[in-house]
Amino acid sequence: MDIRTIHDIQNCFDHAIEPVETIASGDRRRFDVQDASGGLVGRDSEAEVLTRLPAEQLNPVCGPLYVADAEPGDALEIELESFEPAGWGWTGQIPGFGLLADEFPEPWLHRSEYDSEYVYFRDDIRIPFRPFAGVIGLAPAAPGAHSIVPPRTCGGNLDIRDLIAGTRLYLPIEVPGALLSIGDTHACQGDGEICGTAVETSMATTATIRLHKQQSLPAPMFDMAASDTPDIMADGAIVTTGVGPDLMTATREATRFMIDRLGRVADLDPQTAYGLCSVAGQLRISEVVDMPNWVVSYYMPKSIFTSKALRAV
Amino acid sequence: MDIRTIHDIQNCFDHAIEPVETIASGDRRRFDVQDASGGLVGRDSEAEVLTRLPAEQLNPVCGPLYVADAEPGDALEIELESFEPAGWGWTGQIPGFGLLADEFPEPWLHRSEYDSEYVYFRDDIRIPFRPFAGVIGLAPAAPGAHSIVPPRTCGGNLDIRDLIAGTRLYLPIEVPGALLSIGDTHACQGDGEICGTAVETSMATTATIRLHKQQSLPAPMFDMAASDTPDIMADGAIVTTGVGPDLMTATREATRFMIDRLGRVADLDPQTAYGLCSVAGQLRISEVVDMPNWVVSYYMPKSIFTSKALRAV
Repeated sequence: MDIRTIHDIQNCFDHAIEPVETIASGDRRRFDVQDASGGLVGRDSEAEVLTRLPAEQLNPVCGPLYVADAEPGDALEIELESFEPAGWGWTGQIPGFGLLADEFPEPWLHRSEYDSEYVYFRDDIRIPFRPFAGVIGLAPAAPGAHSIVPPRTCGGNLDIRDLIAGTRLYLPIEVPGALLSIGDTHACQGDGEICGTAVETSMATTATIRLHKQQSLPAPMFDMAASDTPDIMADGAIVTTGVGPDLMTATREATRFMIDRLGRVADLDPQTAYGLCSVAGQLRISEVVDMPNWVVSYYMPKSIFTSKALRAV
Repeated sequence: MDIRTIHDIQNCFDHAIEPVETIASGDRRRFDVQDASGGLVGRDSEAEVLTRLPAEQLNPVCGPLYVADAEPGDALEIELESFEPAGWGWTGQIPGFGLLADEFPEPWLHRSEYDSEYVYFRDDIRIPFRPFAGVIGLAPAAPGAHSIVPPRTCGGNLDIRDLIAGTRLYLPIEVPGALLSIGDTHACQGDGEICGTAVETSMATTATIRLHKQQSLPAPMFDMAASDTPDIMADGAIVTTGVGPDLMTATREATRFMIDRLGRVADLDPQTAYGLCSVAGQLRISEVVDMPNWVVSYYMPKSIFTSKALRAV
């Protein structure tokens, strides 16, 4: 049976937007997701294109779908089934955006080719292909147009790297019909998406949508599927830390420290290192109880470096 | 060749404390580490003992060692070699301490037996044995006695769950001789150590110490060894999130949400669920750029649950 494909694109969440169609719990749909630039970044684009992206058109989403019988206080399950790769993606640093935006004011654009196994970031750096959708969200109850950029408790631009095929995401429903949209597909991403972009790529994605009546949730939760990609940490990792009384400051410090280390051990210039963190790093809260100082750790898995020379601290 | 064992116990970091001995770069030592209670919590203790722990005696450390030629601005490498297990450990909730201390005012104490493969938390919950030292630290430059509880940029109570055997930790040196101490050994721990304790256990640990001259570091970093334990995430995970403009609030929300879920899917009372998070969960910063809201995710690996009935959301 053919799956119906959703092509309609929106540039905000707004419960007043006319739904594409009404579906029933258990229906499957294919979402024809565009990349985060809505096609404005091409294979041959220069970094300068990033200074001209119209903010109101970033992260276009596919939808919305109205789910029959869905009401506020119910939960919507989105079971991700597959992602159809486009074969290449881009990573960018957009002036004014990103965890270290103040320290990286210049635009930077990097193209990565990928196949079903790896994203090829550099000749000697390849990251497991691990596609997911950055945006999976429902319309907020508050009226009006809501930017797609910030995530909310009803989902949206969550950018959780583990929303992979096989995973079931559960979102709290705030409006009748739930009004589901999906966008911002990534070929791979590190925790935090710290430079503001992942490996951005158009990918049609198929999902089954189920309604759970009267399952009130405070925020998104998910049942992460067993991974069929190798453990990226199997060879160990280079890890930097930030230690101090504020988690955001510690996160910035750990990131800055990792960028410095990648320059020393892998001969990466700061913008490329910042970009690599964004697509391949893991960001953990290691300690959050030993008052007054917390520890945030930035992990760069060694397995992504194919040259032995690069794999020593 | 016998390795010299360090038995001396300190209850603070203070560069005025007389060093146990002077070692040379490349020397190995065995540290006879006591559990975080300094032996006050026994196999048969009741939770009430946690209300009587003298704060100034918690997390006793073994040391300090003076490293010849070490000067401020150098880095000290601690290559962790082995941990000698005691076979049992405790996890406690100490009134006034922990990420959700305000919501968990009552003392709680839980004993886990362990062997070289697993920590047995409950009949149907077993966590891979993954021993490490919570405290590895150098004396701060500032004079006086410094509590062992908070970690600092020169190390200390870092509680990073990946400081396992084979890992090389690098700490910035602030005082002549570096003054290294090790303590707070854990049979396993989750990211964040959120209830304030891990599986606390005495374990003698052996390490090789090396001096790196003029290697200035802003904070601790480490080269994490390849793991010889199975990937704890191999079977997927149950994941809750906190979404909002403050990372600490989001961390608390994700934790509270996980405790609620563990009650529903694994029949754990809130204190036991809080304790399980502390010893087995993983805490990630999933998104930290999509202003103004960030996403913190709490991962509970499914592989720790041996009963199939427990392994569904």
